[in-house]
Amino acid sequence: MKIYEYQAFPNPRRVRMFLAEKGIDGITFEQVNVPEGEHRTDAFKAKNPSATVPLLELDDGAYIGETTAISRYFETVHPEPALMGRTPKEQAAIDMWQRRVEDGLMNAVGAYFHHATPGLGALESYQNKEWGEKNRERAIATMHWLDQELADRQFIAGERFSIADITALCGIDYAKFCEIGIPPAYTNLQRWYDQVSSRPSAGA
Amino acid sequence: MKIYEYQAFPNPRRVRMFLAEKGIDGITFEQVNVPEGEHRTDAFKAKNPSATVPLLELDDGAYIGETTAISRYFETVHPEPALMGRTPKEQAAIDMWQRRVEDGLMNAVGAYFHHATPGLGALESYQNKEWGEKNRERAIATMHWLDQELADRQFIAGERFSIADITALCGIDYAKFCEIGIPPAYTNLQRWYDQVSSRPSAGA
Repeated sequence: MKIYEYQAFPNPRRVRMFLAEKGIDGITFEQVNVPEGEHRTDAFKAKNPSATVPLLELDDGAYIGETTAISRYFETVHPEPALMGRTPKEQAAIDMWQRRVEDGLMNAVGAYFHHATPGLGALESYQNKEWGEKNRERAIATMHWLDQELADRQFIAGERFSIADITALCGIDYAKFCEIGIPPAYTNLQRWYDQVSSRPSAGA
Repeated sequence: MKIYEYQAFPNPRRVRMFLAEKGIDGITFEQVNVPEGEHRTDAFKAKNPSATVPLLELDDGAYIGETTAISRYFETVHPEPALMGRTPKEQAAIDMWQRRVEDGLMNAVGAYFHHATPGLGALESYQNKEWGEKNRERAIATMHWLDQELADRQFIAGERFSIADITALCGIDYAKFCEIGIPPAYTNLQRWYDQVSSRPSAGA
């Protein structure tokens, strides 16, 4: 099995953290030079028409794109430790929070980066600065919401560490990279951030 | 169990179709008057801070938001007929396509509707018309991509009907509502659309 990625970027990091938490190794990683536009070449788009990394190549030659779909493959093949829930209720709650932090953090920060900052430079074929700035506000609003939620529980989706914590951590570090820090008043979120950042997988 | 929804809208329809395909009944539906802003009242936001429908209330009083998370709950409790895949590879491929059609159709059409049309009128507190128009293009580009994919297979994620077909159908009907029809040249997509539209669940 092989994963195409660009190691420095947030979504590849999500998959690396997921694999590290599962203790899965033996995967080959191949770098795709995203800042140089390699993900948009015909050769790569033949593998993934979405032109995104990470991308998983299975041993039978099939390709799985989308970070969460790749994670789900590994969750199904290596169920323990469970990162996407065990019971129906837990699975649903983790799926819900995963989507909330993907949308409100990862995608919001991404929209800010690609639209309101120089982003990937010449690769940014369309920018809408006002939309980018709106998404900066949205990312901070999500941090505020998470801060309130984390007053009552240890992790994003409940009392157990899950894929939603990985997504939120990578989203917040992406925000920091874009100079959107956790506001000092958000002490619950900061406590959670410090705790999750200290897991060995965070440096995977 | 209860589902809060606004029946005329695309995301509630996705859950209704999912339940109909599973043959699940006995769920109570409660209407939330979205055009009047009932989803933004404190009473509803206490149930779902995202202020969105559909929302599932479990018998223990817990709430599950997000259409796919609600669907996953029912998939786990009633595995057959499987709509989210059986094998690891099938589950991953369906998750991937579900996300691609959510992003490229459902969310793109939603952005067009809310930003470049009157949308929900007075409820649209922020509109970015250029962003809306860009997303109209994106929705049509996704239709083009799906048309190419459907030349080689029967359904969105493979040879079996799945949740990704439900999402794509509801996305395309949402597009039609917004006067974005399937372009006549996209004959594979039209064949798929006619076939999936004729399933009894499509009128659920």
